[in-house]
Amino acid sequence: MGDGFWTPRRTINVEKSIPTMLEQLEQHGIVDNFLRLSGKKNVLRRGPLYTDSDLYKWMEAVAFILQSGEDAKLRATFDRLTDDILSAQDASGYLNTYWSGDLASKRFTEMDRGHELYCLGHLLQAAIAYYRATGNTRLLDGGIKFVNYLVRDFGPEKRPLLTGHPELEMALVELYRTTADKHHLELAGYLLHGDGERLHMTPRQYSYNFSGKPFISRTILEGHAVRAMYACCGATDYYMETGETAYWNTLQTLWQDMISHKMYITGGVGSRAQGEAFGQPYELPNLLAYTESCAAIGNMMWNWRMLAATGDARYTDVLERALYNGVNSGMSLSGNMYCYRNPLELTGDPSDKIRNPWYDTICCPPNLERIFGSLPGYMYGFSNDGMYVHLYHESVLDWQLADSLPLKLAQRTKYPWDGTVEIAVEPARDVDFTVFLRVPGWSSTTKASLNSQPVPGVRAGEYLAIRRTWKPGDRILLEFAMQPEFIAANPRVSDDVGKVAVARGPLVYCLEGLDQKVDALSDVTMVAGPSALKGTEFRSDVLGGIVQVKAEGIVAPRPSSQEPLYFPFAMSARAGRKTELTFIPYYTFSNREPTPMEVWVPYVNA
Amino acid sequence: MGDGFWTPRRTINVEKSIPTMLEQLEQHGIVDNFLRLSGKKNVLRRGPLYTDSDLYKWMEAVAFILQSGEDAKLRATFDRLTDDILSAQDASGYLNTYWSGDLASKRFTEMDRGHELYCLGHLLQAAIAYYRATGNTRLLDGGIKFVNYLVRDFGPEKRPLLTGHPELEMALVELYRTTADKHHLELAGYLLHGDGERLHMTPRQYSYNFSGKPFISRTILEGHAVRAMYACCGATDYYMETGETAYWNTLQTLWQDMISHKMYITGGVGSRAQGEAFGQPYELPNLLAYTESCAAIGNMMWNWRMLAATGDARYTDVLERALYNGVNSGMSLSGNMYCYRNPLELTGDPSDKIRNPWYDTICCPPNLERIFGSLPGYMYGFSNDGMYVHLYHESVLDWQLADSLPLKLAQRTKYPWDGTVEIAVEPARDVDFTVFLRVPGWSSTTKASLNSQPVPGVRAGEYLAIRRTWKPGDRILLEFAMQPEFIAANPRVSDDVGKVAVARGPLVYCLEGLDQKVDALSDVTMVAGPSALKGTEFRSDVLGGIVQVKAEGIVAPRPSSQEPLYFPFAMSARAGRKTELTFIPYYTFSNREPTPMEVWVPYVNA
Repeated sequence: MGDGFWTPRRTINVEKSIPTMLEQLEQHGIVDNFLRLSGKKNVLRRGPLYTDSDLYKWMEAVAFILQSGEDAKLRATFDRLTDDILSAQDASGYLNTYWSGDLASKRFTEMDRGHELYCLGHLLQAAIAYYRATGNTRLLDGGIKFVNYLVRDFGPEKRPLLTGHPELEMALVELYRTTADKHHLELAGYLLHGDGERLHMTPRQYSYNFSGKPFISRTILEGHAVRAMYACCGATDYYMETGETAYWNTLQTLWQDMISHKMYITGGVGSRAQGEAFGQPYELPNLLAYTESCAAIGNMMWNWRMLAATGDARYTDVLERALYNGVNSGMSLSGNMYCYRNPLELTGDPSDKIRNPWYDTICCPPNLERIFGSLPGYMYGFSNDGMYVHLYHESVLDWQLADSLPLKLAQRTKYPWDGTVEIAVEPARDVDFTVFLRVPGWSSTTKASLNSQPVPGVRAGEYLAIRRTWKPGDRILLEFAMQPEFIAANPRVSDDVGKVAVARGPLVYCLEGLDQKVDALSDVTMVAGPSALKGTEFRSDVLGGIVQVKAEGIVAPRPSSQEPLYFPFAMSARAGRKTELTFIPYYTFSNREPTPMEVWVPYVNA
Repeated sequence: MGDGFWTPRRTINVEKSIPTMLEQLEQHGIVDNFLRLSGKKNVLRRGPLYTDSDLYKWMEAVAFILQSGEDAKLRATFDRLTDDILSAQDASGYLNTYWSGDLASKRFTEMDRGHELYCLGHLLQAAIAYYRATGNTRLLDGGIKFVNYLVRDFGPEKRPLLTGHPELEMALVELYRTTADKHHLELAGYLLHGDGERLHMTPRQYSYNFSGKPFISRTILEGHAVRAMYACCGATDYYMETGETAYWNTLQTLWQDMISHKMYITGGVGSRAQGEAFGQPYELPNLLAYTESCAAIGNMMWNWRMLAATGDARYTDVLERALYNGVNSGMSLSGNMYCYRNPLELTGDPSDKIRNPWYDTICCPPNLERIFGSLPGYMYGFSNDGMYVHLYHESVLDWQLADSLPLKLAQRTKYPWDGTVEIAVEPARDVDFTVFLRVPGWSSTTKASLNSQPVPGVRAGEYLAIRRTWKPGDRILLEFAMQPEFIAANPRVSDDVGKVAVARGPLVYCLEGLDQKVDALSDVTMVAGPSALKGTEFRSDVLGGIVQVKAEGIVAPRPSSQEPLYFPFAMSARAGRKTELTFIPYYTFSNREPTPMEVWVPYVNA
């Protein structure tokens, strides 16, 4: 990936987030928890029962960074941590710093909350990413040892198993892709099916844990949002390896439920604080939005898999929506402050502390770090027909086609600040294949040309397939519609009635109080209509360099804080002085002093 | 009180609610909890630790009913229960069925949650109401015995005391009004002041419990809404007996906080389920509104006291708003189903079960019963200057003026179904005094006449004072503005943006899906403007007899369930076919089959 939108995010990830998060993990005893078990440190175990996974996620982030380029120091750290971890592993293969010592007798007895398999899943994902970066199998071997212990002792006719917090399912399918050992895939299938009565689960647990009963019996997204998203990831992976259509039918039903009823415009999911859960259809409050960073990441990861299964650009649209907004917002521009919640409205109360360097449940920060680390892997895809361009960013692809023919492909673009993308296609020689170019669903008018000749058949929300004999020197030019747009929500979303959002390309925008020429953001009404959007401006000096959107607003003649709570409607005409509103991308919210923020802005018609 | 709006509510209360609730209390062991302590029954204690108070509240309701007319059976039941209760009282005076037996040693050690003084407060209120109805002091004597035990052993220099759940404060002031024993007033003052460091309370406990620190140090309504409202009741009572201005200043600050930021249009308060608490300013979600019946009752009771302290009609407006809407909604028309929550929006999901015959925490049902029982006491007021008419309802007042001169006053009205009120003033002879007639704040045009001559000086939201020599046969005629009105909310109330409510007189209205000619209530937009309200109709056959309000609405051309979650604003024009919407009074919601309901309706300008 070359210089562009993601550069400052990926740079700060490597230079600041990764090192400071390891310091934090060490200071909070997360590494010592392993050293304690292996007898290297005489300390008490610290942190909630799932802390092992947080270190593994951090290591996976490191492994992805190593996939993008060698870093001897990071590699040495990974190897040292691998030693620390494996020293704590039982001879049986079992490995978990919480369910050890006095609690070893309780292993696999409280699986709905135990996170034993959840931690193993993250260990496997870190191990596989590191193996792919370096060829080193040391951590992977440890993980496989634990998995083989599970395969031997658990399953139908043996002891029952429950993931409780889904995660191991997708890790096992990825492991199967790495080992080709059918047992690994079968264990994933067993977990996705659940083990029925033997698990003694309540209806609430089936809902909250999104596991334990057949995945293919589910009809709605419910319960803990991260659990649900990770289960969907695992089920999609499992479907891709088995082709079981019942899985595909369920996945489509659940995806439609999310996309039609339960996703914020930012790609965030899980609106309820209680149970960190999906709400009822259209239950999408802005101020109270829970929208955990991990859930937006899960949404992105699921849509990546749905895309891989289909080549359908609808999934790329959701992936991009989550990535650029509800995931991207989770890490501060400074790289060391993280959102757990990503609400769509803030009152500006300084005590809200929406970004923090540490949480006792530290799942989100290393999760964000692994996503930023892994971004290059999301840009392109391949099928027997040819190659896919999923995301647009300055980059060079160095690849081989099916017959080992080298192919280079180079993108030049300032996307999403600018809508123009130039792609140089450079096969080693003339060769037939298809280039699939994603046309974002939000791009109402898109121009595509090949070697300066217009390409027909462009449709928003689909891949534009160009099948031909590609020659060295071929040039594609794409021009996406980058004018800001007003977006409305379904009228069933109660908290968005009478309000509009502003989007430009893949970015959702928001208002922060400190950018406006008004005393209180809540005194502002948007004028909604074709002429109310007053243009854009790239500001390299603001929030790490962003395109601001300007729009016409109206300031109430009297501060709303001085208005009564209820009054006759006839007195509610929102006449007032005009003001120029300045919108910033949502992902940059709360990177300055505390200030009110809103994505959905009340409007009057222009 | 003669025949009118409250008749069916008060009749069902006596004939159905009161007897079925006693059956429920008995079946759930609430009475047996006393018999167990006195050894008359060998059973385990049942229910949460505060169940004694629920029986006391039921008894207070009975006492109020007896104030309105003799009922030998109810009186016998009260006396029997009094025996059962007092048999469980310790020689010391202590009385509580939870903190007895093995838990007796824990008395006054967990006062933030213990509800010991809360239960005593309700005992005293029932005892005082019964004493006033019958002259019987048996239960009152038992209550005083407990109070005197507290006076002897607790307070500054003695053991510290905390109400935890405020309630005893107002009961003690009422007791002082009954006994004239200064110790009773002083104990109320001590509890309202709190006992500082000796209580070892956390900031969260100070907030949640609304007690323990000086009431006069408070600046906002926060924490558990019922606790806060009851504390304000007690503080207002204390102010009225002591005249301490610091209390009055705090009460005004808190009242302004509620009225400007934290009260639903129904008079409901306490928007948050978590902690049954007040939210931030303007945090007033409709679907998720918690709005416990007891909190609306607390609001009504507080405003009754603020009115008593001032004669200011602003407080009567809030009292009436809560009574006719957020309180009144709490009991079903059938008299045996109760709301704990009174939300302002329902999806129609049958599993919501918003009305139930029983709750394990059964505070609200008997609380509603005592309010309906006590209504006659809220209608009129007296001062040295004369008499006040606070509420309008067919009724006859039989009173004596300061010099023992008999005064009869008779209201003839169908209020609030109709805005006309005739009042016959019949002093025994010609006499000088003032009649203060409340002009509701919502009545934009009010006509007042005396013996057919217009009375000048009518102002909405104030008492119209008519000072003269009143003669037998004087007739007052009032005509309040009863046309339906659209009401808007402050733009800071996020969930009400782009929406209007309909009100008529003191009644807030709502839409229920089953009254509309549309498939889904969420497909309806209101046309807001002067001509959109299409009139009213009294329907004796609907919901016990109500005035329906008709309004013009627009039905979306495509069901919103088939629309995407987000789409370009330009595609959001809400053109569609016109439909006539039928509004019903909010208090009647959910008295038929499950159906969607909403108070705040999205609108387009007419």
